Amino acid sequence: MTSTLSRLLDIEPLDLSLRDELQHLIDTKTKPPGSLGRLEALARQLGMIQQTTHPVVERPTMIVFAGDHGIANEGVSPYPQAVTVQMVANFLAGGAAINAFSGVAGLTLEIVDAGIATALPSSPLLVDVAIARGTRNFAHEPAMTREQAIAALEAGAARVRHHAALGTNVIGFGEMGIANTSSAACLMSRLCNVPIDECVGRGTGLDNAGLAKKRNVLAEALARHADVREPLDVLATFGGFEIAMMAGAYIEAARSRMTILVDGFIATSALLVADALASGVRDFCVFAHASNEAGHRRMLDHFGARELLALDLRLGEGTGAALAVPLLRAACAFLNEMASFESAGVADRGDDGAAGA
Amino acid sequence: MTSTLSRLLDIEPLDLSLRDELQHLIDTKTKPPGSLGRLEALARQLGMIQQTTHPVVERPTMIVFAGDHGIANEGVSPYPQAVTVQMVANFLAGGAAINAFSGVAGLTLEIVDAGIATALPSSPLLVDVAIARGTRNFAHEPAMTREQAIAALEAGAARVRHHAALGTNVIGFGEMGIANTSSAACLMSRLCNVPIDECVGRGTGLDNAGLAKKRNVLAEALARHADVREPLDVLATFGGFEIAMMAGAYIEAARSRMTILVDGFIATSALLVADALASGVRDFCVFAHASNEAGHRRMLDHFGARELLALDLRLGEGTGAALAVPLLRAACAFLNEMASFESAGVADRGDDGAAGA
Repeated sequence: MTSTLSRLLDIEPLDLSLRDELQHLIDTKTKPPGSLGRLEALARQLGMIQQTTHPVVERPTMIVFAGDHGIANEGVSPYPQAVTVQMVANFLAGGAAINAFSGVAGLTLEIVDAGIATALPSSPLLVDVAIARGTRNFAHEPAMTREQAIAALEAGAARVRHHAALGTNVIGFGEMGIANTSSAACLMSRLCNVPIDECVGRGTGLDNAGLAKKRNVLAEALARHADVREPLDVLATFGGFEIAMMAGAYIEAARSRMTILVDGFIATSALLVADALASGVRDFCVFAHASNEAGHRRMLDHFGARELLALDLRLGEGTGAALAVPLLRAACAFLNEMASFESAGVADRGDDGAAGA
Repeated sequence: MTSTLSRLLDIEPLDLSLRDELQHLIDTKTKPPGSLGRLEALARQLGMIQQTTHPVVERPTMIVFAGDHGIANEGVSPYPQAVTVQMVANFLAGGAAINAFSGVAGLTLEIVDAGIATALPSSPLLVDVAIARGTRNFAHEPAMTREQAIAALEAGAARVRHHAALGTNVIGFGEMGIANTSSAACLMSRLCNVPIDECVGRGTGLDNAGLAKKRNVLAEALARHADVREPLDVLATFGGFEIAMMAGAYIEAARSRMTILVDGFIATSALLVADALASGVRDFCVFAHASNEAGHRRMLDHFGARELLALDLRLGEGTGAALAVPLLRAACAFLNEMASFESAGVADRGDDGAAGA
């Protein structure tokens, strides 16, 4: 492990010192205790991450990492590989779901070429830090070298440092890459020690025959690389460049004490990698939604997490994370703006339970 | 039934003529079919309600109806009745959760005195259309007269007409009224024919003894008024002025072809009343969240509805409805702004399922 990588993986744990003060403030707001449900835990988490009783959402940012996958050659997606670069061109032209949702949420949007098979013309939204023009096919050989995996982790971290310097304190990560549910399923199976059949889903919409084929391809690939167990090697073997960059980005965002919005199946697979490499990332994460892609629920269970949104999304691109931004704003707003029972002159409940008469 | 009331209850059904065109537009956006989950159904519903393929959220409005309840004298809430007027003063001062969330969501907020026990000084946010200074105690006698119930329905409808004239096309209704979960539970029990034990919850936070007492009080009240079955009489017997005004507001909002955001347990009990009085209201409704108050899930099942947000709220005030507004904006944004596969030059999936190689 390089010394640069060692430094990257060193996360200062979440500072819990304001926890009780935040809880007291939340409990004395003019509402029955606990009645704002999971927004109360969210406000407390935002306060602890930002080390303040007055957390705010500043320059929220969405980075979409895109990359191509050699495993696409095995026919594991109903879409051709060319859709990756076509969809990235669509992001750059403003025509995708993540563009629409970033606009609604007031998110700064950045698209990163982490390793698309075809290079794109330069564009103000695009950052080209491609490691290579697509990964290798992990049905036959590791998707990338250990050096490439490390370079991708560091490139993802660098993008987060860029936005940290500009004032971002809330960040989400999205992805685009035809066949990347195959990569994510293998990462999940190996890192969580879950049978591959419980990790594989229909992705962008496989039929039953396609799903059976995908399962076989991935089971064989996992068997071929049965001895790969160390997290960095697992990433290099089964990962994608966009997934590796996301993993580095998660780690750096936790190091920068940002609140991290976790999107769906692939984004959470990158968090599995980040968490295996550097413990403590999870405490900075907010899990935005539960994807309809099979396996995501089990990933959420792995992190002891519950989703905020019940929307049955299965698109990726960071769309679920973007949709959760207003909930973070609402959590900050109630903590910062609501009166207390005392300040508003509202009677609190009778302690003897006999009030109400 | 008065002729004014008859007119109020006459709702033009949802116009389904654009349904197929909207679905085609949604299906050809640059995303796998169905991958935006419940936002796709939401976009379709917004389009049908607004009779356009380009729906928008205009001047979204939240009306919070407040009223007091004679049943509070039975000790069914852990808070004293005075909290109703104190919390309304808090709304007017900007210190409550609904103020914070309305700010985040860009909602126009209006507070309506539907029948608070103590009159409030005038305020720019407050509309005083109180029917009486609190309802009677339905443990002993009907909460209101039939004439009062009709006057409240019409007053709620009038508030919606006011906002319709100002351009509002999305509206949510909230409430404040100590003991109004008791009113809502009885309305639910009678209108849905569900045993009262399945309708009664802890409200603002009753302990086990308080919960048992509330159950007994409400079971006796339902037995006392066992012969009351006609919806308007059920409303008059067990309702509150704020609930009756909300019911009238739902009906008028459907008549005005607004998209209606449905909040929690009490707001949904008012929708039960509205739906029993005037069929067709439900098609204009978006169910924002599932309250932690026992009984709300069963109400949602009654309407065949699923919630958008999984936040474990149990506050009322319209807070859950306010939090869902950004999801309506997102649904409009993807429908209006996303490119199609054709316009973006993105390859669609292979129809033979063999693509991806």
